[in-house]
Amino acid sequence: MPDTHSPQLEPWQWADSHWQKLVHQVRAGRSYRPKAWKDGARCAVALSFDSDHETNELRDGGKSIGRMAWGPSGNRVGIPRIRKLLDRHGVKATFYVPAVTAMLYPEEQRALVAEGHEIGIHGWIHELNSVLPREAERDLMHRSADTLEKITGKRCVGMRTPSWDFSPNTLALEKELGLMYDSSLMADEDCYELLMHGEETGVIELPVEWVRDDAVYFSMHRFSSLRPYTPPTDVLEIFRRELDAAYEDGGIFQLTMHPHIIGYRSRIWIVDELIRHAKSKGQGKGGVWFATHAEVAAYARANAA
Amino acid sequence: MPDTHSPQLEPWQWADSHWQKLVHQVRAGRSYRPKAWKDGARCAVALSFDSDHETNELRDGGKSIGRMAWGPSGNRVGIPRIRKLLDRHGVKATFYVPAVTAMLYPEEQRALVAEGHEIGIHGWIHELNSVLPREAERDLMHRSADTLEKITGKRCVGMRTPSWDFSPNTLALEKELGLMYDSSLMADEDCYELLMHGEETGVIELPVEWVRDDAVYFSMHRFSSLRPYTPPTDVLEIFRRELDAAYEDGGIFQLTMHPHIIGYRSRIWIVDELIRHAKSKGQGKGGVWFATHAEVAAYARANAA
Amino acid sequence: MPDTHSPQLEPWQWADSHWQKLVHQVRAGRSYRPKAWKDGARCAVALSFDSDHETNELRDGGKSIGRMAWGPSGNRVGIPRIRKLLDRHGVKATFYVPAVTAMLYPEEQRALVAEGHEIGIHGWIHELNSVLPREAERDLMHRSADTLEKITGKRCVGMRTPSWDFSPNTLALEKELGLMYDSSLMADEDCYELLMHGEETGVIELPVEWVRDDAVYFSMHRFSSLRPYTPPTDVLEIFRRELDAAYEDGGIFQLTMHPHIIGYRSRIWIVDELIRHAKSKGQGKGGVWFATHAEVAAYARANAA
Amino acid sequence: MPDTHSPQLEPWQWADSHWQKLVHQVRAGRSYRPKAWKDGARCAVALSFDSDHETNELRDGGKSIGRMAWGPSGNRVGIPRIRKLLDRHGVKATFYVPAVTAMLYPEEQRALVAEGHEIGIHGWIHELNSVLPREAERDLMHRSADTLEKITGKRCVGMRTPSWDFSPNTLALEKELGLMYDSSLMADEDCYELLMHGEETGVIELPVEWVRDDAVYFSMHRFSSLRPYTPPTDVLEIFRRELDAAYEDGGIFQLTMHPHIIGYRSRIWIVDELIRHAKSKGQGKGGVWFATHAEVAAYARANAA
Repeated sequence: MPDTHSPQLEPWQWADSHWQKLVHQVRAGRSYRPKAWKDGARCAVALSFDSDHETNELRDGGKSIGRMAWGPSGNRVGIPRIRKLLDRHGVKATFYVPAVTAMLYPEEQRALVAEGHEIGIHGWIHELNSVLPREAERDLMHRSADTLEKITGKRCVGMRTPSWDFSPNTLALEKELGLMYDSSLMADEDCYELLMHGEETGVIELPVEWVRDDAVYFSMHRFSSLRPYTPPTDVLEIFRRELDAAYEDGGIFQLTMHPHIIGYRSRIWIVDELIRHAKSKGQGKGGVWFATHAEVAAYARANAA
Repeated sequence: MPDTHSPQLEPWQWADSHWQKLVHQVRAGRSYRPKAWKDGARCAVALSFDSDHETNELRDGGKSIGRMAWGPSGNRVGIPRIRKLLDRHGVKATFYVPAVTAMLYPEEQRALVAEGHEIGIHGWIHELNSVLPREAERDLMHRSADTLEKITGKRCVGMRTPSWDFSPNTLALEKELGLMYDSSLMADEDCYELLMHGEETGVIELPVEWVRDDAVYFSMHRFSSLRPYTPPTDVLEIFRRELDAAYEDGGIFQLTMHPHIIGYRSRIWIVDELIRHAKSKGQGKGGVWFATHAEVAAYARANAA
Repeated sequence: MPDTHSPQLEPWQWADSHWQKLVHQVRAGRSYRPKAWKDGARCAVALSFDSDHETNELRDGGKSIGRMAWGPSGNRVGIPRIRKLLDRHGVKATFYVPAVTAMLYPEEQRALVAEGHEIGIHGWIHELNSVLPREAERDLMHRSADTLEKITGKRCVGMRTPSWDFSPNTLALEKELGLMYDSSLMADEDCYELLMHGEETGVIELPVEWVRDDAVYFSMHRFSSLRPYTPPTDVLEIFRRELDAAYEDGGIFQLTMHPHIIGYRSRIWIVDELIRHAKSKGQGKGGVWFATHAEVAAYARANAA
Repeated sequence: MPDTHSPQLEPWQWADSHWQKLVHQVRAGRSYRPKAWKDGARCAVALSFDSDHETNELRDGGKSIGRMAWGPSGNRVGIPRIRKLLDRHGVKATFYVPAVTAMLYPEEQRALVAEGHEIGIHGWIHELNSVLPREAERDLMHRSADTLEKITGKRCVGMRTPSWDFSPNTLALEKELGLMYDSSLMADEDCYELLMHGEETGVIELPVEWVRDDAVYFSMHRFSSLRPYTPPTDVLEIFRRELDAAYEDGGIFQLTMHPHIIGYRSRIWIVDELIRHAKSKGQGKGGVWFATHAEVAAYARANAA
């Protein structure tokens, strides 16, 4: 076995130390799993919406007027429908907002904050962190945090990287920014501490998963073969099974959605049904606890068994 | 942040003025939403069919005799079946027809017009507008309008860009051509005015959506991985949910179909069921209003609240 | 509009004469639609199986031992299961067999012919006709016909091009070979005469369709994103709707399957159910007529209304 | 026909001897099909799990921290859940483990062996065999066998090639390593002997199939169009049909799963239901026999009819 770390080598030629180093860049540390959730609840329900609006198209160059027009439907159709639904159910959720979205639609962000929802960092223009030089990633992350604070009057405590894309520098920058939690990785179903090269960072991961993401089942891209092939009733069934088993396990049901994906008339009922179903287990002791991502992460850390 | 608009920059390097300019090229302006639809109806139902026939294959170079043979099934099988179904239900619809289709099948277009359906512009040979020089796009748009008028005896008042592909020049050319409406964009569920660089144009958008397009679920392309993976019963359910919620909202149920996609024996029943379902809500006051796209756009503009 | 046929031009620049020439290379002529099928049956049921076995992998270069191993399952598992099923139901079908498959498994072909099934030409090694020089296509087509005749003792009267891929020379070569019918194109649901540059050829097309092909729903390719995403029960429903509506129309229910696709334990029951369902309409007058593709094509031509 | 084996030739130009040679590199020989399974059981049920964990991402270069984080969920979530389920049902299964996975998680492997499960070879770092030089493939295969033995204390008797990818040298190396069986190919539904250039090798194949692989229906890859489009209830139905028909046939029901795919809350119930369903047929005489892959292969060889 070659005794070198040269990236020119094929992975099957790597020294053990090389793949070990890769594996340990960012890794799951201790599990933060409380015996029970707030007020004795058995399951934490954390709903989130990534308000990408025009930024997906801008991030790809902004040349398609058709795809750009798709973006604002998140603002004109998706967000109002989601706000109305959450308000009717009295549920608070988390919205991850690229800075460019916030500048295009500042009133949308202020209304969400006024209604008690959490706003989290979601990059500048939905850029992929893994292709950025370190200084650019740092600059964009700081500017994004400042922009959101300026618009909403609140400082964000958590971040979801755009496209869940994590660079070798992301974790250190999140720590530098003093963030309490990240919600972009998926090594577990419970909250856990993120380790950097084996060292504790104090940053909590509230894990996401493709299986609990609306885009996976409903995304549409004209020039690739991405199509919304899964019937909405089956998507509800998948999410409901995740929720029921999280309840059985005493764990977290975390869900990632997008205003321009879930907000359509033929899909929004899925969220309505999910919330109803969760409420049917009761709230408080032995039931479910609806909470923002920040509340779940903070509670998990403070009450880990 | 760099103070330049150079397209060589990565999107995350753009000055704010650059992405703002891109976003404002073509944008959704005021919403045209009537309190009620014609005769007090609660929901407008606008069915449309894009009669592409051989033009998809021709647009791609016309080398595949197999795919070319697929085209005329729209004329021999799809259109006759659709005409019979619409006639049985007394429903008028809109057919968007590339000029080349109209020249290959002029009698088909005349029969549709004679039966009271609307014909709209759909490009020359199903070309993508976004790759055309401005003068070519202008020439093809004018020639397409003239060709359809010559064949059908009627001047078109609306246009759907082929593949819903919109260039930076399309809107100005639609305005120059004096079109009342466009049906290619998707920033809202209600009709809205199209703005060009922030200026009103008087052109109304009657929005489309991938979620309400048969091709998304049923398209087949041998050399890509596009396959008709969604079961037809589930496609009906998606469309029915869109219709039911549009009725609840007092909005528009707009649907895009294709003779060579929906016209098959195992799919045409979906349209039959949808029309039946819409009719079960009654017509006129408190019910549905079946109308062509031109009628819906004109009514929305004239009666916006 | 440029006055030239140069292929360097973009399709939207073509003279009308150019796309007209492309459209008329091979085109659907008169429809061969009998008032009733044999013995007064209302619907012809034509089942077919393309016995590709190893040839799909060989055609692509034959480098994958894994995919090659997949091939013989058609011979060891698929064909025996299909023969048993057809025998139990007393139904005759058509098998399209590449010459290389026939040479690898000559006993399989003889057994099929002995049981009354039809064997049709399906290329040499499942080559794509559209990339062959004319002389190579001619040579392979003749050698394929001769090889099958030598092995089975019967001369084929019909052909299905591998992958339904048709070159500008295919039709002329089919005519030269004296074939009665082709089954590779899809301009209609009824049999029709194939026209070559507007001239009658006497060759009948028995149309296929992607919607009635098992590979569309069940194909698996490791390195592309092709996956068997459609549930088998839904595939049965699609086929059954096609069959029921063909019966209503007094037309043909034609189906394309593959031993290495439909032959699995979790799929073969679809064919069983389809045959049962067809039989439930009765056979003979007012019912269904199970026939080989050659029988259907010959009957349609001889009894067209 | 050209009289040469040159690989520069197109497949349709190959001499018959060339494709015959390709076909016979590795081929299915005699079938090993016992009249009944152990204790008179009618069906052998062989469940397997490929414990890839981080190795899929490492094999592709290890650059994505996001995808890497996905890996350990197999260890933290998937494997514990699978162990618990198998233990509750008293079922033994086979786990195919890349050497790098075993070095990252040695306790996981020891616990599995202690509970009576089989560990099989699954490559070094999930490398594709077909791109390796012969000596590299040989070295990795020997080192993988030695690493697993060192960690678990047991010598493996079977192998599943990573990604079911088989090189022209794989079979000879498996024979050299003295393996009893391979489980990577799919020429039949029963066990069979592998032939190398027409010669018997003594190595038994316990066949896999894409139709019986969870990854086919549930895989997710962000940058390709792979998505988990098939609803879990339909995946259960496919597997159940395979099981029921294997029982009818007196054959084997073999299933390939992955901890990081089947281990989620919304999917693990499929395995639970399958085991329940199998048990409902009884165990022992006339029922099912749950066994590891090694037990099934050994029994099939020793008791072939």
